[in-house]
Parts: sequence; structure tokens; C-alpha cells
Amino acid sequence: MDYKTHYDLIILGAGPAGMTAGVYAARKQLDTLIITENVGGQATWSSDVENYLGYIYISGVELVQKFEEHLKKFDVKVEFTTASKLSLVDGGFKVDTADSRTFFGRAVIVATGKSPRLLDVPGEKEFTGRGVTYCATCDGPLYSGKAVAVVGGGNSGLDAAVQLIKICPKVYIIEFTDQLRADQVMIEQVTKADNVEILVSNAVKEIKGDTFVHSLIVEDRVSLETRTLDVEGVFVEVGLTPNTDFIKGLVELNKYGEIPVDCGGHTGIPGLYAGGDVTTVPEKQIIIAAGDGAKAALGAYSYLVRQPISDDWSSKTS
Amino acid sequence: MDYKTHYDLIILGAGPAGMTAGVYAARKQLDTLIITENVGGQATWSSDVENYLGYIYISGVELVQKFEEHLKKFDVKVEFTTASKLSLVDGGFKVDTADSRTFFGRAVIVATGKSPRLLDVPGEKEFTGRGVTYCATCDGPLYSGKAVAVVGGGNSGLDAAVQLIKICPKVYIIEFTDQLRADQVMIEQVTKADNVEILVSNAVKEIKGDTFVHSLIVEDRVSLETRTLDVEGVFVEVGLTPNTDFIKGLVELNKYGEIPVDCGGHTGIPGLYAGGDVTTVPEKQIIIAAGDGAKAALGAYSYLVRQPISDDWSSKTS
Repeated sequence: MDYKTHYDLIILGAGPAGMTAGVYAARKQLDTLIITENVGGQATWSSDVENYLGYIYISGVELVQKFEEHLKKFDVKVEFTTASKLSLVDGGFKVDTADSRTFFGRAVIVATGKSPRLLDVPGEKEFTGRGVTYCATCDGPLYSGKAVAVVGGGNSGLDAAVQLIKICPKVYIIEFTDQLRADQVMIEQVTKADNVEILVSNAVKEIKGDTFVHSLIVEDRVSLETRTLDVEGVFVEVGLTPNTDFIKGLVELNKYGEIPVDCGGHTGIPGLYAGGDVTTVPEKQIIIAAGDGAKAALGAYSYLVRQPISDDWSSKTS
Repeated sequence: MDYKTHYDLIILGAGPAGMTAGVYAARKQLDTLIITENVGGQATWSSDVENYLGYIYISGVELVQKFEEHLKKFDVKVEFTTASKLSLVDGGFKVDTADSRTFFGRAVIVATGKSPRLLDVPGEKEFTGRGVTYCATCDGPLYSGKAVAVVGGGNSGLDAAVQLIKICPKVYIIEFTDQLRADQVMIEQVTKADNVEILVSNAVKEIKGDTFVHSLIVEDRVSLETRTLDVEGVFVEVGLTPNTDFIKGLVELNKYGEIPVDCGGHTGIPGLYAGGDVTTVPEKQIIIAAGDGAKAALGAYSYLVRQPISDDWSSKTS
């Protein structure tokens, strides 16, 4: 093989949890590999981060750049791919990747985060990338001057709406339950805007278009009346699904597909830790993911220093 | 009374956990009071912070300033005193303070951190402030050009030593156990310095001086030989004691005097949360305290929105 296969620690994911774990592991001089699809994860989707202490205001992309610069100060290797399967082997763990490579870690930290949940309605798949999007921060600017709908009245939906209000003549917010479920400061921002129409107790039935989206069909869940909204953009913000397919069979996930951990990020399997939004920790916040990533790395370090290394393994890690 | 007494939330302490809790509480529009002796707590003692993600390098004092600026963006009141007693009252909690005032919070977050542990040897109290110090970052510069001893071979001891190496002709490191117990990167920094002498398995017996410290008596725990070190400064870094005297009787502390919490910072008493170094969370790190402070604030918010407010209380909070 023309790449180094064996490490003390493999971290899966490079969002706030994975990158913080990387910095902490490197400071403990663990030989560490990060396997990740991208740098930043969900944090890059936030336009305005106002609650990462130390930065009064920073965009998600900028904060991630700062994390990345921080990580680069240390000798941590990064491979850009995703884990397709994690399994136990003698002396540690085996990670099979989507690009058909295999890596081994004496310990593993799973920090793979979450991916957007789909609406699962007609037209969604067909128009993804042609009017249907899951990232307002990434794609918002493309819809300048156009009427749009945001599906989801939680913090992420309102975060999207707040961005779109400034550039779109009309922004619909579609919420399934009977009220918005976001921070008061965000609710105030959208309710005082005069180009916003909030539809609570509404379900999305279909996304329609020709080459691109031209309308969204919603149904009032109380009156059961349907309505056609003329929009060219549909921003889907209805929650997230944990990226845990590769770990099924090894760890019993909770009903949301999250990895159960104790307060220190330990999964219960010796040497296997998890941190950030992929875990059962209820609050999904950058600073919480960072703190929990640090806990997982310190836990993994504490495990590794007490764990003998087999000669075979040792010869491959050097 | 000429001050506002009743709040939704009272946060005790303004270190990384307390300040992060303050920002999160304010963003949830909780009417919040912070009661604290100082701003920054233990974080201000760190000369070099290299593991708060987003800042590759920052001094503890600077990082605390950034936290403080962040907190000041929000409408959070701060009273500079300490809690002398925390007790349950109808509708919430009562906080008696060292300056004989009384405040009431519907919920409370304890983030009072830790204070330095004493050596408890002859001469220590007598020479405190006259050669004996507990904060290398604060007092180190006063010992420029003088021989000094650091008592304690953990991370905080070595952090002190690394600072002192640069300005003192001789730095002794006294460690009670048979090896240094700090991060490898820190151990390397002190072992490669030629003005450092490391004495492991050594106990401090006495601190001697006239007006100021002139020597330190240590005993080798293996040979039982004593030795007199001619030093003018003794930096005590032998651990910390949680600031929890005011809560005894209300919460059962662990054997170290720390407040037991669940993974969300809840103490088990409805409305009472804790975060940061004062809790049983094993890792004492700025980013971990910040993350756990956020968890505690979100927990308190979630509790408060579900909790009816008595008319009496409501009239006093407005």
C-alpha cells in the first residue's frame, strides 16, 4: 500500500467536534488521522454565528477557517473520503472508506455530524439543485430577487429566512406544527419583516416546476385547504439525520439514529468515542460540539496510554 | 431595597462556563443576573492558551476579555460579590451574598470554579504575597532574575515553569509523585531548558524566610534526605479546590467537593444547574467549560419555559 494505514487514533469527521478532538489529540502527541468528506461540516451552513464565545459575530465559514488553521498548526493527517464501515479488529478498529481504502486506528472518535433530512414529497428529488436546496448560506445568493419558501420554522429555518428576507421580495415560512420553534431573537427578526408570510400548521404536499421549480403546494392541516405558492426557490430546513450508516451493527443507535455516549463521549466499546451532533447529546451547538470533541480526545488519550500496543501494530504505525 | 432582587436566572461565577451561560441565556431572553467575584476566573491564570479552538494562540487574559466583550453585547446584569449561601425558596432560589444582599432566581447555574489548594506547610501562610504565590501568570514577572521553585508537576505547574524559565536563572520543579504528569509538549519544553532542575518524589516540608522567602526545604520521599533550595519565589501549583461552601446542605458534593451533574449540567434539583470546573466533569478545560455552560443555560431555559411564574415573583422581576 502506498499510504500509511495504522494510527493511534482515527477521527471520523472534521466539523467542530472532530477538529477540536484533532487539536487535543495532537497536543497529547497521538499519531492521528482524520477521515472526512469536508472540513467544517454543518458549521459552514451558518451565516451568522453569534454564540461561539470569543467571537461576538463570525460567519460559519470564517469560524471553520479559523478551526482549520488551528488544526494545521499540528501534525494531524487528513484523508478526504468517508467511512463506509467501522469494525473491530485485533488491537483496535478497521475503517473501510468510500474510496475503497482501509485504515486502522487503536482508538476511534466518531464525529460525522448530520445531514439534512428530506421532505419526501413529489418533486423534491427531481428539482434538487434546480430550485430545491438544503443550505441557505450556500445557495441563498442565487435566489436574489426571487420569491422563495423556507420549509421549517425552527432555528435553522429562521436562520435561512433571515438571510433571504434581505434579498428576496417574498419569503414564505412553512411550519408543520402550530408555532415557530426558534429563539425569540430570531422569531422577532422574521415577524417584523414586511416581506415574510408565515404559514403554521401547514404541510408541504408537492414541489412543481418545469426545468426549474415554479411553485410549492401546501395544505393547511386544520382547514385541509391546499394553496399554491409561486416560488422559484424551496429551502428545506426540516431537521437532520445522523451520519451513522457505517457504524450500524457495531453500536446500537437510538431511535433517531444517534450514537449513545456517556458524559465523556465514550460509547461503551473500549477505545470508541463520539462527539458532536452525531451523538445523543441533545443540544446541537458549535461550542458544545467543540467541548465534547475535546472530552472525547482526552478520553481516547487516557484509554490509549493504558493500552499495550501489539508488536505487529507498532511496526505499522511508525 | 435599591437594587433589583428577582431574576429568571442567576448565574454564580463569570469564568468561561458562567459567561457562556450568560450569552446563551440572554439569547433566550431570560432576565439574567451574574453574581461573581471577578471576570474570567481561572482562565485568567493561563499565560498561553493554545487549545481554545478558533484562537491558535491567545493569553488567558485576552481570551477572557473577548468573552467579556461578547457578554456585554447582551443585557445581562453583573453584581461583583460572592454567594455565601444558596437556598430553596418558594418559586425558586435565594442567594445570600458576602456583601449582605439577597437575590432571587427562578433558576440558578453554579459556575464558581475552583481556587488553588494550599500546601499546608510551615511558612506558607506567613509568606503568602511575600514570596509564596498561586498564580505564575499574575506574579511571575515580579521574580525576574531570581531563583524560584514551582511546586507541582502537572500541567499548571509546568505552565508556570515554562513562563519562569524565560526570566529566572534557576527554576526548580518539585513533584510529589515519581514523574511529571503533564502534556508531552509541556514536558519537552521544561526538560530541554538548561536552567531547570526537576525533583520528582519530593515533598515540600517548609518555606523559610525573614521578611521575604529565602529558601524551601524539600524531602526526597525515597532516600528521605532533606535539601534546602535557595529560592526567593515559591509558585504553588498543587491543584484546586471547588468553590462550593455556599451550596453545602443543598447539594450532596462528591469527595473532592465538586457538584455532581448529569450530562446536561443538571444537579437533580429542579431549576439548579452547574457547569465548568466546579462540577464532577473530569476534564478542566476552557472549551469544555464553555460548552458545558451553554448546556446548563439551555437546560435552565428549557426548565423555565415550562415552569409557571407566581404573581408575586412576576411583580418583582419586572
